[in-house]
Amino acid sequence: MMIASSIDELQVARRLLDGTVGLVPTMGYLHEGHLSLIRLAKSECDRVAISIFVNPTQFGANEDLSKYPRDLERDLKLIDPLGVDLVWNPTPEVMYPPGYQTWVEVESLTRPLEGSMRPGHFKGVTTVVAKLFNAVQPHRAYFGQKDAQQAAVIRQMVRDLNFPIELVVCPTLREADGLAMSSRNKYLEGADRQSATVLFRALSAAKSAYENGERDAEKLRALMKEVLASEPKANPQYVSCADYDTLEELDTVKGKSLLSMAVLIGKTRLIDNFVLG
Amino acid sequence: MMIASSIDELQVARRLLDGTVGLVPTMGYLHEGHLSLIRLAKSECDRVAISIFVNPTQFGANEDLSKYPRDLERDLKLIDPLGVDLVWNPTPEVMYPPGYQTWVEVESLTRPLEGSMRPGHFKGVTTVVAKLFNAVQPHRAYFGQKDAQQAAVIRQMVRDLNFPIELVVCPTLREADGLAMSSRNKYLEGADRQSATVLFRALSAAKSAYENGERDAEKLRALMKEVLASEPKANPQYVSCADYDTLEELDTVKGKSLLSMAVLIGKTRLIDNFVLG
Repeated sequence: MMIASSIDELQVARRLLDGTVGLVPTMGYLHEGHLSLIRLAKSECDRVAISIFVNPTQFGANEDLSKYPRDLERDLKLIDPLGVDLVWNPTPEVMYPPGYQTWVEVESLTRPLEGSMRPGHFKGVTTVVAKLFNAVQPHRAYFGQKDAQQAAVIRQMVRDLNFPIELVVCPTLREADGLAMSSRNKYLEGADRQSATVLFRALSAAKSAYENGERDAEKLRALMKEVLASEPKANPQYVSCADYDTLEELDTVKGKSLLSMAVLIGKTRLIDNFVLG
Repeated sequence: MMIASSIDELQVARRLLDGTVGLVPTMGYLHEGHLSLIRLAKSECDRVAISIFVNPTQFGANEDLSKYPRDLERDLKLIDPLGVDLVWNPTPEVMYPPGYQTWVEVESLTRPLEGSMRPGHFKGVTTVVAKLFNAVQPHRAYFGQKDAQQAAVIRQMVRDLNFPIELVVCPTLREADGLAMSSRNKYLEGADRQSATVLFRALSAAKSAYENGERDAEKLRALMKEVLASEPKANPQYVSCADYDTLEELDTVKGKSLLSMAVLIGKTRLIDNFVLG
């Protein structure tokens, strides 16, 4: 396993990877969700590269950049059995050197949902992912469905900017009680951990209603809000039933749709989603 | 010579190009300046691709998009003897399909000079060049020094977004009387053609003063304005003596600097520049 930090180190290491290359971009503090992406990449590509970079430009001024969990040694131990060929672990100075001034932005898809709550977040995401794509030159790139809007935004960027890269979006991995795996679950202390299952319970309730024939999107949103309201520690930021491709809120569910939400559990902000249809 | 229009055609053709690939992006209506870029690319790379695309997103609402000269048959005849391997000639619909919404922007370098006169111009340039780079995957890309700020902006984008591409910027080619070659010279009718040499004369006067020891940037700007004022048909938009890398206006010339100007000759807008130091 090669470990690169600078761009030069990365490029030397990249040249040693023959055949098809799969990239799994991460912010580190890996969990089973990341490992499932790496295993899929390994099964589909000759070589697998992963990036570990807590990207400062996708965090807002009042967000958790400084306390975002980091543990490279732990991450390397976790991926050791998986046959990863290259780990790129750049510093912020490597990614954003003095004088840095170029940004990649996707417009309408970044406005609702996470975009409405986290101004500038997706500008940071698309910029760093474009940089990762250019530097690593993968044939395929793997993202989790847990960040549904991120996957949609990157899919749009790949299409619009003609990246010759196949995007693979993998199902959300969950704990036994339904909580979606996330590095931020580490923040959940004491009773918050149990309360956090309310996202899964709310999404499940709406999905059951959908499976029983409910197609009124407002009723599905109301149902999710009702379940969330039953949990005193839960403070919903948004609750959405939107078109899967455009992310526009629906009146009536038809075709592929996305149930999604962002909820504060105590001080911890969690997101989750289910795909319908 | 392969000719591609759609992205699929391009990608099939690109796979047939072995070895190093040089890309010469153009808006067509080729002149000797373009041909010199193609010849240099041919001498430095195993294969040469050129793109011919009048990019609508780099034209302002009141600019010359609809009357910009186009003649594909003439262009193909001109490059026929040069051994170009691939011509990509996409339509606006191929480059900007319905739902298109992704943009690449360079910040401070795009603000002065052309950026101040042509809002949005460089956003269109960097976006289309990023698309060309991703779609063609060249090892080297060739641009003319005539568009000095464009070359600086693209150099910054390549560095910031980690494109694994070497940028080659080639000297401006000129007519016998000094007029910089440009597709827009076609607009110069009658006496305008002679008046247009005033850009070269103004730049030459400032360069002579510099070579005789003048380092006061304001005096060099004044000298260029004086020469331009001697030509009744010339209406200067800006006259600049700036740092070569940052494009910030100088007080005192030291190190590599850029003399540049945009001037209306009748209704035709021309730009030109000299590099000092």
